[in-house]
Amino acid sequence: MSSAFSSFSAVSDKLFQAKAQKGLTFDDIAKAIGRDEIWVAAAFYGQAKPDAEELAKLSEVLGLSPLQNDVSAQWWPMRGDLGPMPPTDPVIYRLYEGVMVYGHAIKAIIHEKFGDGIMSMINCKVTVEKKPDPAGDRVVLTFDGKYLPYSKW
Amino acid sequence: MSSAFSSFSAVSDKLFQAKAQKGLTFDDIAKAIGRDEIWVAAAFYGQAKPDAEELAKLSEVLGLSPLQNDVSAQWWPMRGDLGPMPPTDPVIYRLYEGVMVYGHAIKAIIHEKFGDGIMSMINCKVTVEKKPDPAGDRVVLTFDGKYLPYSKW
Amino acid sequence: MSSAFSSFSAVSDKLFQAKAQKGLTFDDIAKAIGRDEIWVAAAFYGQAKPDAEELAKLSEVLGLSPLQNDVSAQWWPMRGDLGPMPPTDPVIYRLYEGVMVYGHAIKAIIHEKFGDGIMSMINCKVTVEKKPDPAGDRVVLTFDGKYLPYSKW
Amino acid sequence: MSSAFSSFSAVSDKLFQAKAQKGLTFDDIAKAIGRDEIWVAAAFYGQAKPDAEELAKLSEVLGLSPLQNDVSAQWWPMRGDLGPMPPTDPVIYRLYEGVMVYGHAIKAIIHEKFGDGIMSMINCKVTVEKKPDPAGDRVVLTFDGKYLPYSKW
Amino acid sequence: MSSAFSSFSAVSDKLFQAKAQKGLTFDDIAKAIGRDEIWVAAAFYGQAKPDAEELAKLSEVLGLSPLQNDVSAQWWPMRGDLGPMPPTDPVIYRLYEGVMVYGHAIKAIIHEKFGDGIMSMINCKVTVEKKPDPAGDRVVLTFDGKYLPYSKW
Amino acid sequence: MSSAFSSFSAVSDKLFQAKAQKGLTFDDIAKAIGRDEIWVAAAFYGQAKPDAEELAKLSEVLGLSPLQNDVSAQWWPMRGDLGPMPPTDPVIYRLYEGVMVYGHAIKAIIHEKFGDGIMSMINCKVTVEKKPDPAGDRVVLTFDGKYLPYSKW
Amino acid sequence: MSSAFSSFSAVSDKLFQAKAQKGLTFDDIAKAIGRDEIWVAAAFYGQAKPDAEELAKLSEVLGLSPLQNDVSAQWWPMRGDLGPMPPTDPVIYRLYEGVMVYGHAIKAIIHEKFGDGIMSMINCKVTVEKKPDPAGDRVVLTFDGKYLPYSKW
Amino acid sequence: MSSAFSSFSAVSDKLFQAKAQKGLTFDDIAKAIGRDEIWVAAAFYGQAKPDAEELAKLSEVLGLSPLQNDVSAQWWPMRGDLGPMPPTDPVIYRLYEGVMVYGHAIKAIIHEKFGDGIMSMINCKVTVEKKPDPAGDRVVLTFDGKYLPYSKW
Amino acid sequence: MSSAFSSFSAVSDKLFQAKAQKGLTFDDIAKAIGRDEIWVAAAFYGQAKPDAEELAKLSEVLGLSPLQNDVSAQWWPMRGDLGPMPPTDPVIYRLYEGVMVYGHAIKAIIHEKFGDGIMSMINCKVTVEKKPDPAGDRVVLTFDGKYLPYSKW
Amino acid sequence: MSSAFSSFSAVSDKLFQAKAQKGLTFDDIAKAIGRDEIWVAAAFYGQAKPDAEELAKLSEVLGLSPLQNDVSAQWWPMRGDLGPMPPTDPVIYRLYEGVMVYGHAIKAIIHEKFGDGIMSMINCKVTVEKKPDPAGDRVVLTFDGKYLPYSKW
Repeated sequence: MSSAFSSFSAVSDKLFQAKAQKGLTFDDIAKAIGRDEIWVAAAFYGQAKPDAEELAKLSEVLGLSPLQNDVSAQWWPMRGDLGPMPPTDPVIYRLYEGVMVYGHAIKAIIHEKFGDGIMSMINCKVTVEKKPDPAGDRVVLTFDGKYLPYSKW
Repeated sequence: MSSAFSSFSAVSDKLFQAKAQKGLTFDDIAKAIGRDEIWVAAAFYGQAKPDAEELAKLSEVLGLSPLQNDVSAQWWPMRGDLGPMPPTDPVIYRLYEGVMVYGHAIKAIIHEKFGDGIMSMINCKVTVEKKPDPAGDRVVLTFDGKYLPYSKW
Repeated sequence: MSSAFSSFSAVSDKLFQAKAQKGLTFDDIAKAIGRDEIWVAAAFYGQAKPDAEELAKLSEVLGLSPLQNDVSAQWWPMRGDLGPMPPTDPVIYRLYEGVMVYGHAIKAIIHEKFGDGIMSMINCKVTVEKKPDPAGDRVVLTFDGKYLPYSKW
Repeated sequence: MSSAFSSFSAVSDKLFQAKAQKGLTFDDIAKAIGRDEIWVAAAFYGQAKPDAEELAKLSEVLGLSPLQNDVSAQWWPMRGDLGPMPPTDPVIYRLYEGVMVYGHAIKAIIHEKFGDGIMSMINCKVTVEKKPDPAGDRVVLTFDGKYLPYSKW
Repeated sequence: MSSAFSSFSAVSDKLFQAKAQKGLTFDDIAKAIGRDEIWVAAAFYGQAKPDAEELAKLSEVLGLSPLQNDVSAQWWPMRGDLGPMPPTDPVIYRLYEGVMVYGHAIKAIIHEKFGDGIMSMINCKVTVEKKPDPAGDRVVLTFDGKYLPYSKW
Repeated sequence: MSSAFSSFSAVSDKLFQAKAQKGLTFDDIAKAIGRDEIWVAAAFYGQAKPDAEELAKLSEVLGLSPLQNDVSAQWWPMRGDLGPMPPTDPVIYRLYEGVMVYGHAIKAIIHEKFGDGIMSMINCKVTVEKKPDPAGDRVVLTFDGKYLPYSKW
Repeated sequence: MSSAFSSFSAVSDKLFQAKAQKGLTFDDIAKAIGRDEIWVAAAFYGQAKPDAEELAKLSEVLGLSPLQNDVSAQWWPMRGDLGPMPPTDPVIYRLYEGVMVYGHAIKAIIHEKFGDGIMSMINCKVTVEKKPDPAGDRVVLTFDGKYLPYSKW
Repeated sequence: MSSAFSSFSAVSDKLFQAKAQKGLTFDDIAKAIGRDEIWVAAAFYGQAKPDAEELAKLSEVLGLSPLQNDVSAQWWPMRGDLGPMPPTDPVIYRLYEGVMVYGHAIKAIIHEKFGDGIMSMINCKVTVEKKPDPAGDRVVLTFDGKYLPYSKW
Repeated sequence: MSSAFSSFSAVSDKLFQAKAQKGLTFDDIAKAIGRDEIWVAAAFYGQAKPDAEELAKLSEVLGLSPLQNDVSAQWWPMRGDLGPMPPTDPVIYRLYEGVMVYGHAIKAIIHEKFGDGIMSMINCKVTVEKKPDPAGDRVVLTFDGKYLPYSKW
Repeated sequence: MSSAFSSFSAVSDKLFQAKAQKGLTFDDIAKAIGRDEIWVAAAFYGQAKPDAEELAKLSEVLGLSPLQNDVSAQWWPMRGDLGPMPPTDPVIYRLYEGVMVYGHAIKAIIHEKFGDGIMSMINCKVTVEKKPDPAGDRVVLTFDGKYLPYSKW
């Protein structure tokens, strides 16, 4: 997909380079712009769309010329096309395996608790927390999404 | 895959029929056998393996002849093959979309917080909670998995 | 997918047979149960979930024993798995071609008119109208779906 | 696909850049050249073919040198190859999901209302309207296509 | 696809058995019902839809009970799903190879002779003729389809 | 596929550019070199191999330096890899749909008229004619291929 | 593919059972009917079409009721659909690997020795010989196919 | 795959260019270096690995600077990834069709003649011969591979 | 694949049932017939071919009627087609992930230690050992395969 | 995947070039940095992540400027995407074939020896040894991975 369709992803390299040279974590950046680290990482990968104010703050914390004045700020994300599916990277594959193994169970419980509808992945917040555990630390990954019932007409 | 390879899935129909006729929810059954509703639903779909004691309790709460004495209790689950990928059902597709859209961000944060490793989907607990919200109730889906660092040798 | 997972689709044959023997159109049935013909057709294909009252009316108009008392009434639809994608049937392929050819244009206009979000296919109504035209009648197909903005967090 | 096969797409970048720098919407451009915004957006993505007069107007409104004199004006669109199918972008995926979930119902109603034939995606007009709604604005997407009956011979 | 969706294909076996037992060619049947042999063969494979009169004639020439009174006569063909694509059978693969090797050339000539549009495969007649040739007989396969120009709006 | 494997396709751009600048149709070029327009278009797309004499004539009519002296004249076409299958372009898709819908019928008639063998796509001529029709002009596409019976041994 | 399309494959089981019970090799059968063992094995798998005389001999050597009087004798093979591609069985995969690794080299040599054309797989004989070798016996697999030059027109 | 993984294929272009400019056939080159033409063609495509002596001879006959001193001489071939499978080029497709149509017959005869094992494609020689025939010349393609029995343990 | 092609897999169910009813492990069976447990498990899944003597011992230890007298003893395994690839079951997927992640490294070391050739999967023994470890027991999986150098000719 | 996502793979070329020019084996490098040759090869291919100390040693033994000071040292590997699956290279394909043919047997034995769980491919060491054998040297490939039992909750 050429830059005509989604020029924001064209600035991803610039963002990742600046982050690495400044030695910042996503959490550092998230605190500086008033958002969560997962949302910020998603924006770096072109999967979320910062507005002009957020671009201004990003530019400042990363020491870049103002991104909000860039033509790229006018385009919209093409989401979801970062790599192959099934994922080949083991970290991402485990999430995919979670959908395969527990997807039907999750669907069944959503229906039992809410009825005939879905959990929105648009009106949804995603967080990752580190939970210390003597038997080995744990990753707590949470999707908090709005329930949407199916229309009838 | 014939019954030779995974005869437990052959009892899925029996379990689902009994549950429907008794009018029980997964939560009802989970409480009766001392497990969580998602794990119980996964077991119904052949994605988790109940032991003899759990089979005994399942048989009791569902009014079935003792499943633990069944030959099927000797086989192991073939996990992950319940339906097509990408999923065509909208509920399950939204989870898959979550992996596509937020997978790289989740990976980045896991690495920043933990190092070079993965979140286990084997040593992992999955829960679904209903969070009331005046703007529309929300689904809170949580994966709580152990962090596993990559070996070097 | 066995009947354990979605027994409603198991009654599809019964519904289609009864409809053919009675010589009813979907519009006839839709009027009898107080819904639109597309929604009714979707329910026949297992893509929409009638409630107990709708099942009672369906049973009546089609001369079937009460479907609402059936165990099948307790399951949830597995949507979207009726045939191959890309579709091989020319009628359905034309809709798929519409997504390929006009999808990016539709996305661009939704973003320009609404912002960074999507048109819901859950909170959505679908209708098909016949528009007489001397140069050949026209099919007017409409999707009327709620706009959902992307969350930030 | 190299420029030999479809050089119009090679001007897409130029068109998108000019539109962004002028700060125009597709509707602004559509009004200037006497066409609908969806058709104009489709042309920007190389999915519709403007004639010489339309290229002249496009050049004028966007401040570009006359596109109608360009060699690119002699080629024909290669339609439909803008991104992966199933679509990974959530906006376009929802349209695709609409085909999967409602495609058979739409086919059934077209047959009942028209007979054995299809809705043309060639002789077809596509529009997107914004319908204000207190419960959240709605997107109204319409396909208006000619009915074509199957030949017999 | 179960019989709910396209019961005509369910009578294909009956048609093929009767044809074999009567020792008739498609051309014999075509002459008896007043259609071309390719169209008749397509109908046998469920790819064309005979009307009540044609079903009556088919029943007569094949010695079958009246097909037009059958419930199956109320459904519509699901076209295009007879076998794998790419085709594995060499006869059908050669046609597919023709599309791969000559498709772009055919597209280019259609555009040069007609403009921006397509050749309809709905309003289209297909014939196969045997052309004797001392160097080996030849198959002459012809598609005669209506030209459809693209809409603008 | 790099230029090592099929450098003729490397001259396609040059041919298409020259044709566009001269304002010639494929038929103009075909008449100048003594071949049919479909064959010439196939050669432009690298799907047919012109010999030295044909390259000399092509060079002359297009005003190019002698292609027959080019190293590229020594390689052989890699046929069939111009675009995705199923085709996404609607013109080429209609041909593909023809194979899906009528392929089995064509196979059946070839067998009935000729026996157990195939229609060659190597010893085959392809033509496209415009047939004026008051109800809309028609495209007549013909494949004229040698019948090849299967060997026994 | 149901028996309507290729009933010969329906007799494959009968042929294989009879061969096993008689304890015959393909070579035994080949000698009895006057054909080569590879061709006979291909016929058993439905990949070659025996005529009435060959069916009579097959019936005799295998002790079956006369196959030539069977309705199945009127259908035509659907070739090439015996298993997945890429093959998963190691014996067949090695042949496939041969095409991947040596296919371009074979193509290059065919072109250098014959010109722009192909080796026919229709007018082709296939044999397998055992060549004793002290370092381990060798399989000699030979394809002897007619060269077919590409048409020009 | 970048040059890091298999830099020999990076010299393919150089080899093909030199061969074309010298006007040599693969057989000319094969005789000069003491190998068979198919093996030499395979080496040109990066599917076989010449040793230092063979590289020296290749350099000499093609008039290139000594390839054996090149860093590229230290890498190993990545075999089998030259083009799509199924092949789209008709010459290579016919070989693939041979595997589909005759693969099971070849497997059956190998087992009958040798037992439970395979024909090696590693310890294998491939040749192409031209066999003159008044009815049209024939291509004789031979695979001569070692039989390998399956281990038991 | 019907029983005509590989009837041994038809006895898999019988073997698995008998093993479960006897309460035997693969190791118990392996010791009784003088083979390794992995080889025995492979045979149960139809991936290895027991000879007459091994079938006799298997029949004895499992209490089955003599399998060696069965017609099924005359067929050959169709290997490799037990489930989808990529595998969806997590146990088998981890092996597949091992090929993806470490495959190129393994290839590089095989070439450095042995030259241009492969590790045979035909002349290969596979074992699984349990290695106790206070930090958690370990699985030691070993492939011991013959090195095969590539032929030159 | 651009360098933004995994810049370490961008240094692969540099590493491979230096290794070739120094004429070092992976074992030479492994000894110099205190790791195993398979792990080092995996790191060269971007499938393992060296830490700062290992990068320092790698830089030294290969004569490169200090890699540990490079921005690239801050990114994380995207594992598993080096080539197509199924693999086309015969060396890697044999490993893949091992998973297809022996995967179910390995799974069965792991379950019998350990219970319901998996062998970790994260906490796993991979080695390749050369075992001399008069009948031909053997490759001994070992995966030594931690057993992980499935959670219940």
